[in-house]
Amino acid sequence: MDTLTLQNPLVATYAIAATLMILKAVGMSWLTVARMLQANGGFRSPEDIRKTPLNPNPDPAQLQPNERVERIRRIHQNDLENLPFFLAAGFLYVLTLPPLWLAQLLFYGYVLSRLLHFAAYLSAQTHDLRATLWTIGSLILVFMTCRTLLAALGV
Amino acid sequence: MDTLTLQNPLVATYAIAATLMILKAVGMSWLTVARMLQANGGFRSPEDIRKTPLNPNPDPAQLQPNERVERIRRIHQNDLENLPFFLAAGFLYVLTLPPLWLAQLLFYGYVLSRLLHFAAYLSAQTHDLRATLWTIGSLILVFMTCRTLLAALGV
Amino acid sequence: MDTLTLQNPLVATYAIAATLMILKAVGMSWLTVARMLQANGGFRSPEDIRKTPLNPNPDPAQLQPNERVERIRRIHQNDLENLPFFLAAGFLYVLTLPPLWLAQLLFYGYVLSRLLHFAAYLSAQTHDLRATLWTIGSLILVFMTCRTLLAALGV
Repeated sequence: MDTLTLQNPLVATYAIAATLMILKAVGMSWLTVARMLQANGGFRSPEDIRKTPLNPNPDPAQLQPNERVERIRRIHQNDLENLPFFLAAGFLYVLTLPPLWLAQLLFYGYVLSRLLHFAAYLSAQTHDLRATLWTIGSLILVFMTCRTLLAALGV
Repeated sequence: MDTLTLQNPLVATYAIAATLMILKAVGMSWLTVARMLQANGGFRSPEDIRKTPLNPNPDPAQLQPNERVERIRRIHQNDLENLPFFLAAGFLYVLTLPPLWLAQLLFYGYVLSRLLHFAAYLSAQTHDLRATLWTIGSLILVFMTCRTLLAALGV
Repeated sequence: MDTLTLQNPLVATYAIAATLMILKAVGMSWLTVARMLQANGGFRSPEDIRKTPLNPNPDPAQLQPNERVERIRRIHQNDLENLPFFLAAGFLYVLTLPPLWLAQLLFYGYVLSRLLHFAAYLSAQTHDLRATLWTIGSLILVFMTCRTLLAALGV
């Protein structure tokens, strides 16, 4: 690679996609917190029903699963199953020196597929739609990974 | 480091191991999908029992845990607990400029340990065997990480 | 970047924080194992109650959730939701060439926040304290990620 700097357009493209995906994943933690506050429940640890300034009227029911919170946890788990691998695969893919337009198509296409997957999951669209959006992102990830593997093998 | 390119044998060795592990993790998503299709169940979201082209005869029982699906989810979770850290630790370990033979031994040894762990978990071998295979991979990961930490500290 | 080597103080700072966080996450796996051995239970797979040298007197109760084991699993899951993204975000943040003192403050501040979060979670402190410590780390992560995104966009 020429140089590993953000002035390198390939690296910058990767960095934009990667940081957006990191913010997306971290956003799920914050959204979980927001929904736990709204529901005043959906907690998970026994100590979470101790009386504190942030929980002045604790109740054992606060430890019951709350579907609005659980939905975000499922979305979050889907991120954990996908995004760390995109972050690594995308960086390695940059080392194959793809044409910039292709890198942009794959990286931004991946980001878009994940944001649409989020929207579909959050609003409880059909399994079919959610699975289709997930598949697009996963195929982009598999393509980049296979391309990098072949390049590393010198094929 | 000389150069961060796939022509650098250390980088190529890392890239081969990393991409294989990424494909392995992503493969668990696809295997979960395959087993959900086979079982026509093991779903997780309330909307997954809505009538759709892919689910023409929905049934609340489709939301019950299915052991064949749950097994893949457990294997997948084990990957999430291990592979992202291998991906990061392996890359940083390359920066310590280890001898190529040692890097190959550690990287490919890790990949092999994870593939055998997968085979043992998938076929429900004893906890003892599965734990032994996990331990080999984990010790490789800890070794690489400690070596990198010492190098970064200038020790 | 000047050079991607551990002699570069920015890279070394990142590598120290990253390896400590990797060891922390991997440590959760080992702590889960240790507590499963202590409790002789908290297992998850049907085959784990097969009679083996390491489990000479199997009992179906060994598959019941064990709160001391589950606590470590929750801490571990919190790591999975945070650390892989820190590892990627921290590396990309180095590419923005921040002043060394700021990088040290952010990287070591993050490590400290996570170790304190672990101590608070392990010893079942209040949700308020645990959430505060998590928030500090998450804000550091968001700051580094946004800073990198702006730099990559050339803003």
